[in-house]
Amino acid sequence: MKKTPPRAAFQGEMGAFSQEALRRFLGDGAVAVPCQRFEEVFLKLKNKQVSAAVIPIENTLAGSVHENYDHLVTYEFPIVAETSVRIVHNLIVPPGVAFRDVRRVFSHPVALNQCLQFFVKNPQVEKVPFYDTAGSVKTILEEGLKDAAGIASSIAAEIYGGKILKRSIEDDRQNFTRFFLLRPQDWKTKSPLPAPKGWKTSLVFTVRNIPGTLFRALSAFALRDINMAKIESRPLRGKPWEYLFYLDFMGHIDDERTRNALGHLRELADFLRVLGCYPRGD
Amino acid sequence: MKKTPPRAAFQGEMGAFSQEALRRFLGDGAVAVPCQRFEEVFLKLKNKQVSAAVIPIENTLAGSVHENYDHLVTYEFPIVAETSVRIVHNLIVPPGVAFRDVRRVFSHPVALNQCLQFFVKNPQVEKVPFYDTAGSVKTILEEGLKDAAGIASSIAAEIYGGKILKRSIEDDRQNFTRFFLLRPQDWKTKSPLPAPKGWKTSLVFTVRNIPGTLFRALSAFALRDINMAKIESRPLRGKPWEYLFYLDFMGHIDDERTRNALGHLRELADFLRVLGCYPRGD
Repeated sequence: MKKTPPRAAFQGEMGAFSQEALRRFLGDGAVAVPCQRFEEVFLKLKNKQVSAAVIPIENTLAGSVHENYDHLVTYEFPIVAETSVRIVHNLIVPPGVAFRDVRRVFSHPVALNQCLQFFVKNPQVEKVPFYDTAGSVKTILEEGLKDAAGIASSIAAEIYGGKILKRSIEDDRQNFTRFFLLRPQDWKTKSPLPAPKGWKTSLVFTVRNIPGTLFRALSAFALRDINMAKIESRPLRGKPWEYLFYLDFMGHIDDERTRNALGHLRELADFLRVLGCYPRGD
Repeated sequence: MKKTPPRAAFQGEMGAFSQEALRRFLGDGAVAVPCQRFEEVFLKLKNKQVSAAVIPIENTLAGSVHENYDHLVTYEFPIVAETSVRIVHNLIVPPGVAFRDVRRVFSHPVALNQCLQFFVKNPQVEKVPFYDTAGSVKTILEEGLKDAAGIASSIAAEIYGGKILKRSIEDDRQNFTRFFLLRPQDWKTKSPLPAPKGWKTSLVFTVRNIPGTLFRALSAFALRDINMAKIESRPLRGKPWEYLFYLDFMGHIDDERTRNALGHLRELADFLRVLGCYPRGD
């Protein structure tokens, strides 16, 4: 019996960096389903139009994608894997266009801002903000623009038949985006996942708004030598100046140490939910 | 000798919510200097075109304004006051326009999204995303649109001569934005500031990326019963997956307890800077 390839939703046009993460998670055979908005990605998974979703959660230059933190709490899909993709911005043109022809460069404002040195060195080209990185390549190729380039991933060049004129024009190479793979609540893996670098667990909690409670909550981990990888706060709706805390730490949910830490945290937290336990990525 | 009124920069058009914060900080006499971007606000203060700046730092629904956290570290202007403004969205039209005439409502996408119940109850009106709340009122008044309204503050109605058709159409009344007043580095107050609710201090620090360091950093405050009001993390440039932490706590920088806590934190932190010490706001 032939296996049906998985269908996975992501935000952006075909060729977005999320699609590179999607390939790494699910292989080349997976069907990538583009969505306009992050919430649409979650809704497609909810409505069973896809069997997986890929979302960016943080970038090493821009910070966390806070909207997705909010959706993780609302939709309750478990995180089953993480990966980080180096963001490489390429200058892409329609075939036949030479660099001397390029007068306008289209891309998402964040990408344009991450390639400022290129624009300083090439004052003859104008920055044109566009709604999407891959979408800029799609558009200049579809419209056959002879004086324009897009800034996007190499996958975008491949998909739309563009030519990469200059590779890796980003200012800062320490530019990575971390992605999560989400599955439906009832999803079960047939074989245990490989975790050569160990496991990571993500959770969200609130504590009463009294002095020292966050410190005590973190003590549940620190006193057991559990290594925290990240903490993020988000406003708590309806309770001005109170916060939800998102925590990533090293360890599997079934480790005794982790179970004890979560038991300890439960004593202190008003609300606690595990968002996922997944093999640690690169 | 007549005192020159202070000039203060803020982001947005005249009538933005930042201007309401500016009035509270500096009184009706202050000259409000609108800027297009947040960085322009900091640059105007740096270039001495203004003697103060007003920036939003967090909203109880949308979360922190991360860009401004980054600018606080770059520009080093001390925070000298905080206030929080309730965000009240009003439906504003040119004089003579009645509610039955309104077919289009212009505003910033965040404001439109905070008034969804109004749009559900009034399906005859279309949402039109605009670059600014107050700017939407400015435009419909300037162009004398007869079928359009803007969503903005009551100050915007006052400034541009608009009529408030419906007050407070936001879905969630727990909608507050916290603002900071910034002054030049060499600014000194002539008389001590009143602080009926006590003092607050904001700082930023980094810790070595080894297990337990954030917990130990917070212990500097928790072990001295110093109440933390907020913690926020931001990516550290050039060091993927490491973070800057922004902390607000209750206490004056000259309190013995605070001095001891900061001394303790200095032992643990790679980098530590006090961003300001200011009377606690509402």
